[in-house]
Amino acid sequence: MARVDGRRADELRLIKMRRGFTKAPAGSVLIKTGRTHVLCTATVEEGVPKWRQDSGLGWVTAEYEMLPSSTGERRARNRGGKIDGRTQEIQRLIGRSLRAVVDMKRLGERTIWLDCDVLQADGGTRTAGITGAYVALAEAVRKLRAKRLIESNPIMDSVAAVSVGLVRGKVLLDLCYEEDKDADVDFNVVQTGRGRYVEVQGAAEAGTFSQAQMTKILSMAGKGLRKLRKIQEETLGK
Amino acid sequence: MARVDGRRADELRLIKMRRGFTKAPAGSVLIKTGRTHVLCTATVEEGVPKWRQDSGLGWVTAEYEMLPSSTGERRARNRGGKIDGRTQEIQRLIGRSLRAVVDMKRLGERTIWLDCDVLQADGGTRTAGITGAYVALAEAVRKLRAKRLIESNPIMDSVAAVSVGLVRGKVLLDLCYEEDKDADVDFNVVQTGRGRYVEVQGAAEAGTFSQAQMTKILSMAGKGLRKLRKIQEETLGK
Amino acid sequence: MARVDGRRADELRLIKMRRGFTKAPAGSVLIKTGRTHVLCTATVEEGVPKWRQDSGLGWVTAEYEMLPSSTGERRARNRGGKIDGRTQEIQRLIGRSLRAVVDMKRLGERTIWLDCDVLQADGGTRTAGITGAYVALAEAVRKLRAKRLIESNPIMDSVAAVSVGLVRGKVLLDLCYEEDKDADVDFNVVQTGRGRYVEVQGAAEAGTFSQAQMTKILSMAGKGLRKLRKIQEETLGK
Amino acid sequence: MARVDGRRADELRLIKMRRGFTKAPAGSVLIKTGRTHVLCTATVEEGVPKWRQDSGLGWVTAEYEMLPSSTGERRARNRGGKIDGRTQEIQRLIGRSLRAVVDMKRLGERTIWLDCDVLQADGGTRTAGITGAYVALAEAVRKLRAKRLIESNPIMDSVAAVSVGLVRGKVLLDLCYEEDKDADVDFNVVQTGRGRYVEVQGAAEAGTFSQAQMTKILSMAGKGLRKLRKIQEETLGK
Amino acid sequence: MARVDGRRADELRLIKMRRGFTKAPAGSVLIKTGRTHVLCTATVEEGVPKWRQDSGLGWVTAEYEMLPSSTGERRARNRGGKIDGRTQEIQRLIGRSLRAVVDMKRLGERTIWLDCDVLQADGGTRTAGITGAYVALAEAVRKLRAKRLIESNPIMDSVAAVSVGLVRGKVLLDLCYEEDKDADVDFNVVQTGRGRYVEVQGAAEAGTFSQAQMTKILSMAGKGLRKLRKIQEETLGK
Amino acid sequence: MARVDGRRADELRLIKMRRGFTKAPAGSVLIKTGRTHVLCTATVEEGVPKWRQDSGLGWVTAEYEMLPSSTGERRARNRGGKIDGRTQEIQRLIGRSLRAVVDMKRLGERTIWLDCDVLQADGGTRTAGITGAYVALAEAVRKLRAKRLIESNPIMDSVAAVSVGLVRGKVLLDLCYEEDKDADVDFNVVQTGRGRYVEVQGAAEAGTFSQAQMTKILSMAGKGLRKLRKIQEETLGK
Repeated sequence: MARVDGRRADELRLIKMRRGFTKAPAGSVLIKTGRTHVLCTATVEEGVPKWRQDSGLGWVTAEYEMLPSSTGERRARNRGGKIDGRTQEIQRLIGRSLRAVVDMKRLGERTIWLDCDVLQADGGTRTAGITGAYVALAEAVRKLRAKRLIESNPIMDSVAAVSVGLVRGKVLLDLCYEEDKDADVDFNVVQTGRGRYVEVQGAAEAGTFSQAQMTKILSMAGKGLRKLRKIQEETLGK
Repeated sequence: MARVDGRRADELRLIKMRRGFTKAPAGSVLIKTGRTHVLCTATVEEGVPKWRQDSGLGWVTAEYEMLPSSTGERRARNRGGKIDGRTQEIQRLIGRSLRAVVDMKRLGERTIWLDCDVLQADGGTRTAGITGAYVALAEAVRKLRAKRLIESNPIMDSVAAVSVGLVRGKVLLDLCYEEDKDADVDFNVVQTGRGRYVEVQGAAEAGTFSQAQMTKILSMAGKGLRKLRKIQEETLGK
Repeated sequence: MARVDGRRADELRLIKMRRGFTKAPAGSVLIKTGRTHVLCTATVEEGVPKWRQDSGLGWVTAEYEMLPSSTGERRARNRGGKIDGRTQEIQRLIGRSLRAVVDMKRLGERTIWLDCDVLQADGGTRTAGITGAYVALAEAVRKLRAKRLIESNPIMDSVAAVSVGLVRGKVLLDLCYEEDKDADVDFNVVQTGRGRYVEVQGAAEAGTFSQAQMTKILSMAGKGLRKLRKIQEETLGK
Repeated sequence: MARVDGRRADELRLIKMRRGFTKAPAGSVLIKTGRTHVLCTATVEEGVPKWRQDSGLGWVTAEYEMLPSSTGERRARNRGGKIDGRTQEIQRLIGRSLRAVVDMKRLGERTIWLDCDVLQADGGTRTAGITGAYVALAEAVRKLRAKRLIESNPIMDSVAAVSVGLVRGKVLLDLCYEEDKDADVDFNVVQTGRGRYVEVQGAAEAGTFSQAQMTKILSMAGKGLRKLRKIQEETLGK
Repeated sequence: MARVDGRRADELRLIKMRRGFTKAPAGSVLIKTGRTHVLCTATVEEGVPKWRQDSGLGWVTAEYEMLPSSTGERRARNRGGKIDGRTQEIQRLIGRSLRAVVDMKRLGERTIWLDCDVLQADGGTRTAGITGAYVALAEAVRKLRAKRLIESNPIMDSVAAVSVGLVRGKVLLDLCYEEDKDADVDFNVVQTGRGRYVEVQGAAEAGTFSQAQMTKILSMAGKGLRKLRKIQEETLGK
Repeated sequence: MARVDGRRADELRLIKMRRGFTKAPAGSVLIKTGRTHVLCTATVEEGVPKWRQDSGLGWVTAEYEMLPSSTGERRARNRGGKIDGRTQEIQRLIGRSLRAVVDMKRLGERTIWLDCDVLQADGGTRTAGITGAYVALAEAVRKLRAKRLIESNPIMDSVAAVSVGLVRGKVLLDLCYEEDKDADVDFNVVQTGRGRYVEVQGAAEAGTFSQAQMTKILSMAGKGLRKLRKIQEETLGK
C-alpha cells in the first residue's frame, strides 16, 4: 500500500531546519517537516516564576500557537480568555519534554521560554515543535555559556519526538494531516538522544488497540527518532 | 519495601462504589479509591452540539473539577475564565475514554454529559473518574433503554483506568498522592473490559524510562484493571 | 391544605448532618435537608487579604457553587469568567452571616474559607449552606484551639438560616423546590442561637406583601430556627 | 443627638428630580438625594430575551454602575469580565423592584432597560436608583402609550425605596455615606405607592438586631416612602 | 448648502462648560457641544504605575466610556472583559493629548486619571472629551498647587480638539452625528493653545482625499480651535 | 547627520517580498523591511458578518499580532481575554486601509481575512503590514477570479503605507526601532497607488509640531510610497 505522498511506511517526511531564522531571541529555528512549518524560539529571562524563587533552580516552559492562516480553513486566534484544550495539552507536553533533559541547578535562576508558532500545519506540529524547540534551546544555552553566565552545560541529553499511527490496519511513521485524520490509533513518542523515553502518549481515536500493535508502533517510532537526532546534531554543528 | 499505606506493589487501594448517590442525574456513582472520592454523574440531554447536528450520531463529553476543599491546601475554583491546563487535559481524557466504548449511532442524537467532581483527592482522581464515569454512563443508558428511547445497547464494552508509577526504582500499582509526588515515571492506562487499550499515557516526571520498565508497568496495570472491571460489574448488578 | 410532601405548614424537612464527611479541610459537614444536600467545609489559611493586613483581625469568607448534576436539567459550570448574579448574592450572604458571629480579633490574622458545594438541590440551598457552614466553622475553630493557635473562642454565638414562603396565600416553612417556584413571597431569615437577627431578606416574586403577612412569616421562621439550632448542637456534641 | 448633616432622625435628605435630563432614551431623570446623584434612564427595545420569546409577555431589567469619579477615591471600572458582587446584587434588586409593579402582558413583547448610573455617591445609591428608575419607566411607558404602541397602562402601582439604619443605637432614616459606614444594621425597604412591600432587606453589618428594633425601622421607612411617592408624583405631573 | 442644524460650514456648535459639576473628583466639568454632553473629571492618586516608579516623573492617563443610554439605540456596557476597539482608541488618544502639555517632572510621582463619560452623544465625543478634560486637569492641578503639593505649574500649554469632515464635497467644522455618518473624510485635530499640533488623525471613511482637501480641512480646524481655547480660558477664569 | 544604519534621510530600508511563503491561505507574502518581518496572509471565507448579511456586499477585515519572540524582550501573548490597545488600533487601521481600495459590491457576500503576524519587529510593523497585506489580498482576489467566483476586479487601486518621523529636528523616512523610540513626532501615511490619501496619522510623542514640519513630513512620505508601489507591482508580476 502506497502512502498518500508516496513514502514507505517507515519513512519520515523531508526534514529541514533553518537555525537563526529570526534574530531577536537567543535561539531560533524554522523546522519544516514536509509541509508542516514551525518557528521554534528560545528566549532567556533572568528570574523564575514566584513559586520557584530562591530555590537556586531554573525553569523551562513552552507556549504553542497556530497562526490563523496555518490551516486550510482559517483558525480563530486564542483571544477570548480561554485557550482551547488542545493548545494547552500541546504546550504542556512540549514544556515537560524539554524539562526532562535540562539540569535546572546548572541553569540557575533563569527562565527559558520556548515558543512554538506553527506557520503552516500538515500534521505532526507538536512533535515538530519538540524536535525544533530542542535545537532552539541548545542554541540559547550555548549563548549563555559563551557569555559565561552559566558554567557547566545544563543540557544532559538531546530530545526529539515523532508520531506513529495505525491507519487502516497499517503502522505508519510520521503522519501527515490526511493520514492523521483517518488514523484509528495515534501515538506521540518523545525520546532522548540516548534512547530513553520521556513520554509515550497513545490514544485510540476510533476503536482500540492491542499489545502487539503497541509493540510494533514503538519500534517504528524508535527508528524515526534516531534519524531526527542526527538532523538535530547536524543543524547545531559542533 | 513496604508502601506508605502497607500495600503490596501490585495491590489496588480499597475500592467502593455507591450507585445512585444523588437522584437528579440519570446515572450517579460515588467512587472511593482509598481516600480519593469522586462523584461521577451522567446527565442526558436531547440534541447534540452544533457541529454534529443532523449526523444521526450521539455525543459523550466530560467535565472534571476538584472541589476547593478536596486537597490539604485549599484550591482556587476555575472561575477566572481560564480553566487550568491540568483540568482541561483530564476532562478531555475522560471524554475520549468513554467515547471509545460507545456506538454513537445507537445512542442517537443525544448528548451524555459525564461530570466527575472530586470531593476528596489523594491521587488517581482521573483514573477513578473514568472508572466511575463508566458505571454512571451504563446506568444512564439503562434508563434510556427502559424508557425505550434507544433500541439496541450503545455500550460496546466496559472501560476502566488505573495508574502505575515508578517510585524509587520500584513499579507500584494505583499510586496514592504521597507516592505520586515522588514518582519518577507516571502511567495512566485506560483499557476496555476485553483487555484492549484505549489510551496509554506515560510520562517521566523526573529523568526518563527504558523499554523494559515500560513493559513491566503495562503488565501491572493489566492486573489492576481486571479487578476494577469486576467491581464495576458487581456495582451495576445484572 | 396538604403540602406536596405531606408536611404541616410549620414543619421542617428531615435534617441530617454528617460531620467529618471529608478529611482534608479542618471542618467538613454534609448537611441534608430533605433532598437538598450541601457539602460545607471550612479551610484555614494563615494570613488575611491584602486590604486587611496588619489589622490584627481575621477574615471569614464563603464560596457557593452547585454541581452541574445537582439539578434535574444539567447546570453549566461558572467557568466563563463571569459568575452568575445568583451565585454571587448567595456566597456574599453566607459570608456575612458567618462573620456576624465571629470575633475577628480573637481569630487573629488568618482566613477561614467556607465552601458550600451543592451536591443535590431541592430548594433552600443557601439556608442549608449557612446552617451547615456554621458547624464546619465551629469544627475548624475547635481544631485551631486544640493546637493552641488561638487562645479564646472567637465564636460568639451560633447561626442558622431557614426559608419561609407565601404560597397560594399560605405561610409555609422550609420550602422545597416545587413549593419555591410557586411562592409569591420568599423570605430567608438568618438568626443567631440567642434569637437575634443577622439578616432578613424578603422579596415578592409575584405581587407584594403586607405588614401582617411579614409578621406571620417571621414568627414561623423563628420556630424553625430553634429546631435547627438544636440539631447543630447535637452534631457538634460537647 | 444631631445627625452629621443636622437632620432629624426621621428626615429625608433634600430630594430633586430633573425629568428629561438626557434626550436619547425614552425616559430620563437625574435624581439627587442630597449629594447622591443618579442618572436613571429607561430605554425601550422591541423584543424580549430568548427564554421569554413567544410568551406574549414583556420584560424589565436593570443595570447599575458607578462612575469612577463618583466617589472620593477613584473606583475602577467593571471592565475585567467580572462584575463585582455588590454591583450585581444592586442591579438585580432594581430589576426585581420595578418588575413588581409592571403587568408584563400589557407591556407586550418588548424590553425596558433601566440604567442607573451614579454620577456622585454619598450613600443610598440603590434606593435612589429604584425611586428614580420608576419615574424614568413611567415616562417611557407614557411615550409608548402616546404612540399607541400599548393599549392599557402596564404600570399597576408606583414603587420607591429608602434606607434606614441603626447607628450607635439610634434608628435613622435615609443614611448618607458617613452614617452608613458606621451603621450596625442597614435596611433597604422597597414599597409600592399603595403601601405594600416589594422587598425588605435588613442586614447586621456589625452585631445583630432584635425584633423590636426591626419594627421601629420598618415604621420609619414607611414614613420616608410616603414622602418619596409624593415627589415622584409631582415630577411626573398629571 | 445649509447644514442640518442651520450652521455655517465653519461654525462650531453652541459650547457650554459647567465647572464643578460633581464634587468628589479634584476637577470636574460637564462639557456640552450641542447635544453632545461629556462629564470630564480629573482624579489625583499619589504614586505612579509600576513601570514608572522611582523615575521622579508623574503620569496622566484617560478612560472613556459612553453610558448605555447616551445614544438612540441602547449601547451595551463594556463588561465582557473585552473593551471594544473604538473605546480603546479614543481613551488612548485622550491620554496622549493631555500628556503632551504636562511637564511630568513638575507633576511629581502622582497619577492624574481623566475620566470622560459620555452622558449624551451626538458626534464629536472624543474631541469634546479632550477639550473638557483639559479644564478638569487644570482645575485639579490648581488644587494641588493650592495645597502646596506641587511647586511650579506642570501645565505648559492648554490643549483642545475639534473634528472637521468632508461631507458631499464640502468641508464642515465640528460635525454632529447626522453629518458624521455621511462624511467621506473625518479629521480629528488636537492643538495646543499656542497653535502647535499634538495629533492629526485623518481617515477616509469612503473613498480617499487629496492634498488640497487636507490643507483646507486643517485651516478650518485651526479656526475652531482658537474659539475653543477662549471658552476654556473663560471657564477656568483667572 | 548619518542615520543609525547609514541610510540617507529619505531612504527606505531594503524591502523584500516573498509571495506564496505559505500555501494554505489564498494569498500569502512574507514582507521584510530591513529587520522587520511580517507574514501577511489573505484567507477567503464565504459569507459576511451578521450585521452585513443580505446586503450583497463583501467584507475585508484584519488581525495583527506580534509573535512573543519578535522583540528583544519576550512579549506576552494576547491571551488574557483583553487585547492590548496598541494591537487593536493597528488591526483596525490595517482593515480600514485595505477596505478603502476594495469595491465591496464586486467582491460579493464573502469575507477576506487579512492576518499580519510579525515574526520579527524592528519598527514600522503596521506600515509593513498594510503594504504586504495589499499583495496578499491581490493574490487572493486573483484566485477568486481565476475560479470565476467573481466577475469584475473588486480592487480599485493599490495601497501602501510608510512611516516618517521627526528625530532630533530632522525629518526621516521609514524609521527603524532605534530611531522610532527617539522620535518626537511620528507619522503613518497610507496612500493609494494613484497618490490619494487613505489615512494620515501624526502624533507628537514628545512636544508638538508645526504646520511647516507637517508639510515636509508628508512630502517625504509621498516619495517613499511611490517606491513601495513599484515593489508591490513587481512582486505581483503581470
